[in-house]
Amino acid sequence: MLESLVQAEVCDDECPIKKTATVLEGRWTTLVIRELLPGKKRFTEIQRALTGISPKVLTARLRLLERRRLLTRTVFATVPPTTEYELTPLGHRLEAVLDAMAEFGRQLPGDDE
Amino acid sequence: MLESLVQAEVCDDECPIKKTATVLEGRWTTLVIRELLPGKKRFTEIQRALTGISPKVLTARLRLLERRRLLTRTVFATVPPTTEYELTPLGHRLEAVLDAMAEFGRQLPGDDE
Repeated sequence: MLESLVQAEVCDDECPIKKTATVLEGRWTTLVIRELLPGKKRFTEIQRALTGISPKVLTARLRLLERRRLLTRTVFATVPPTTEYELTPLGHRLEAVLDAMAEFGRQLPGDDE
Repeated sequence: MLESLVQAEVCDDECPIKKTATVLEGRWTTLVIRELLPGKKRFTEIQRALTGISPKVLTARLRLLERRRLLTRTVFATVPPTTEYELTPLGHRLEAVLDAMAEFGRQLPGDDE
């Protein structure tokens, strides 16, 4: 069944692989989701886990994932305010994709360029 | 086992998900691989299947995937010359990732923005 999807003839906007590729597009997007799979996290926790990401890019990625309904953002009226991010049930369904990516990645050499 | 990989604490360059995300980075990359899963294809066949891709971008994606050893390029001395692209065994292992992406994509709405 999945086999037939992968090998369908035309790659139009209804192609499910294209839809997922669009959702995951952009550097860091997949890794932000990875950070949230175990449970909700605060902005600073995600930032600390993703060495090299700028606050600006992280904010942009989180907003985009929120718009795509893959995560929710909750602001708490603490001083200073804290913000928690949590995957939606839809976002959690990406775990299967990330599992497959992890399995493939373990077969790759460390750095081939 | 995979579970533990997904939830590993630090996301450094050795993180297998990050490695795969880097390989698949860039618009069209995943879809080029999708086109080659059923078997080798010529440049024009891939271009025809990916509505909207420019020859320049397709060339760039194919070269990058070749450098990463996910596909091979064979040039035939026909007039005019023809070029065939074929996934390597490593490239074919991405099928599991694309299968998972297809399954996730079928759960997405058509256009939510």
